[in-house]
Order: sequence, then C-alpha cells, then structure tokens
Amino acid sequence: MVDKPAPDASRRSEKSRRAIYAAALALVAETGYPKTTIESIAARAGVGKQTIYRWWPSKAEVLMEAFLDLGEQAAARQGDEQVDGPGEGPPDGIPDTGDLAADLKAVLRATVDELLDPAFEAPARALAAEGVVNERLGRQFVAKLLEPQLELYVRRLRSAQDAGAVRPGVDPRVALELFVSPLAQRWLQRTAPISYEYTDTLVDYALYGLAPR
Amino acid sequence: MVDKPAPDASRRSEKSRRAIYAAALALVAETGYPKTTIESIAARAGVGKQTIYRWWPSKAEVLMEAFLDLGEQAAARQGDEQVDGPGEGPPDGIPDTGDLAADLKAVLRATVDELLDPAFEAPARALAAEGVVNERLGRQFVAKLLEPQLELYVRRLRSAQDAGAVRPGVDPRVALELFVSPLAQRWLQRTAPISYEYTDTLVDYALYGLAPR
Repeated sequence: MVDKPAPDASRRSEKSRRAIYAAALALVAETGYPKTTIESIAARAGVGKQTIYRWWPSKAEVLMEAFLDLGEQAAARQGDEQVDGPGEGPPDGIPDTGDLAADLKAVLRATVDELLDPAFEAPARALAAEGVVNERLGRQFVAKLLEPQLELYVRRLRSAQDAGAVRPGVDPRVALELFVSPLAQRWLQRTAPISYEYTDTLVDYALYGLAPR
Repeated sequence: MVDKPAPDASRRSEKSRRAIYAAALALVAETGYPKTTIESIAARAGVGKQTIYRWWPSKAEVLMEAFLDLGEQAAARQGDEQVDGPGEGPPDGIPDTGDLAADLKAVLRATVDELLDPAFEAPARALAAEGVVNERLGRQFVAKLLEPQLELYVRRLRSAQDAGAVRPGVDPRVALELFVSPLAQRWLQRTAPISYEYTDTLVDYALYGLAPR
C-alpha cells in the first residue's frame, strides 16, 4: 500500500500536481520569475508549502516540470500519437517519412501553434527573459528543456544524412539552427510575425541554400 | 554664439554626454532596466537631472543612444572607416567586394567580437531581457537598433541577387535570418559557444544549403 497508493490518493495527488503547475505558470507570467516563490505557488494552488517541497527541491524544478507538462498537454490536444505518456519527457522524435522538407515543416508548424498559444506565451516569455540575465537558470532551462528538443532535430538530420538527403560534412547540431533560431528570435524579440508560410520558407532556404544551384 | 557654442562649452557637453551614456549602461547592467531611473543616471554621471531631460525625453532614449554610441566607439577602435561619424547611426553598409561569402563572414566575425566584449555584454543582456517581457520597449529597440542593422544585410543580399550570387526568388529579409538569428540565439540563451569558425560555418550552410548539390 505504500508503494502503490489507493486510487483515491493517486487522484488527489494528480489533482494537486496540476493545480501547482497552473499556479506556478500563472504567477511567473503575472509577477516574473524573481517574485514567484514556493509560498506564493502553494497559496494560489491551495496546498501547503510542504506538499511542494516534498515533490520538488526548488521553484526552478516546479516550473520546468510545469512546462514539460504544458508541452505534453498541447501534444495530447493535437492528438499527437508520438507522446510517450505523462511525465516521460518530450515527444519521441520527429516524423521520418523519408521527405525531410515535409517532416521539418510539419514540426515547425506545430511549434508555431505552440508559440502563439496564449497559455504558453506569458510564462515562456517571463522565463526566457530571466534566463537571459540569470545565467544559472538559463543554463538549466537550456539543458533540461531546450536541448532535448534540439536533439530530436539532430537525430532527424542524421537519418537524412544516412539517406543522402543532407551533405555528409554538415554538422547537424549547427544545421538545425538555420530554421530553429530564426523562429525563436522572431518570437522572443518580436522582430517580425511568425506563420506557417514563414517556417516553410526557412526550411526551403536552409535545405537548398540561397545561392543558385 | 547661440547656434554655435564656444569650443569650451562644446567640449563640456561632449564630456557630459559620454558620462551620461557610461552611467546609463553601467546602471542597467547592475540593477536592470526597471530600477534604472533618470535620477540614478544623473547622480552617477555627476550631472543635474535637468541636463538629461534637456537632451532626452526618457531613459529608453538615453539607453538607445548610449548603445548606438557604444557601437560607433567599437567600430572606431577597429579602425573601421565606414562609420558616418558620431551620432549618425550604424556603419554605412556591409562591404561589397563581390565575394558574398567573404563579406558576410567578415561582418559576422566583427559581431562575434562585439558580443564577447565585456563592456557590451551586461547592458545588452539586461535590455534584451527587458525587451522580451516589455513589449513596448522591445519593439522600440528592434525598430531603432536592430532593424537598421538588419537592413544592411538586406541591401548586401539584394546586391548579390543583382550579381546572380543569390537566387532571384529569395526574400533577403528572411534569408539574413539564417546566419544572424543562430548567432543571436546562442548569445542570448547561451545554447552553445560562439566563434569565428561557427559564424563562417553558418554562412557556408546558408549559401550552399544542407542538401547535396
């Protein structure tokens, strides 16, 4: 009974966990990262702060798991069959239909949807801004949230290299930045609007190059 | 005598202007944008706050001109002959030697130097972070500082299109993001180190594409 809680207890803690995530994301969006505390998250979620400390060592971990959960919920809403399941991390890869351009465009279109989702935007901006000035937090978020996503592109580009669709000498970790970073900068710095047409164009330019063939 | 101040008065105000820029950049780096005020800039620069209000309508304008001045000083230190002169805005274009890859690599290497310059880094990060969450300020900085720089790439890419070095259908405003945005994201989010080798690689990938030719 200790290792396997009764269904009632499990439902209760699932409900608390979701309430804590929602409170953490709302607070960081409204007040910024520095002013968000374990105490304020607990008060808003209607739980004792010991409940939070029992599950997470710090607010950074609460927020990171809240973001992972947000991504999983968004994927579930889109009926995405590639999600491993709750708590198992990011989707298990980028589709490999053999058509690299089509696969990259599909994933980037889903990212556009996520970036334009109001539930995601405010907390994501607050955390991104804090990560720019707070090096420790920034590195933690890159390592735990961003790099695992980028690794999926690395794998898809390696598979394309094996299939002869990407030149052998290309470094996939740099190559993915040609389409991922422009989208990230437009969103973060609001340098220009984002759309499916835009990300489709990025993929075409990156794959076929700016110079005439 | 009113329109053309005596040399002494001109030297005095030039000295005050530089002291105000230095104070503004130091304060925003140390305390962040929200806590930097005209009063604190004046106190640190050793001038009356009316001196600042006489020349600039708000702290945002002070900081923008301080950044423009920083860029001009850096260009002057590098012996760059393309600067129009103090207060005249960014360098007057990207070199056009006829070799697009070499010209882009040279400019991006100079940007790497600037991004790694400690005098630039802390205030630039503080302002970038504020621009991520403060939409009004973000848009102002993009319009006044970032877009004029990007416009230089647009012009160079158009000239390359005229010369047949870039495909006719390519949109230069999107194309430049293939090499500018990856560098910006690595610096802003510290996703990976930046170097000359890295920016040279970006230019080669962007011009020749990831797919085999």
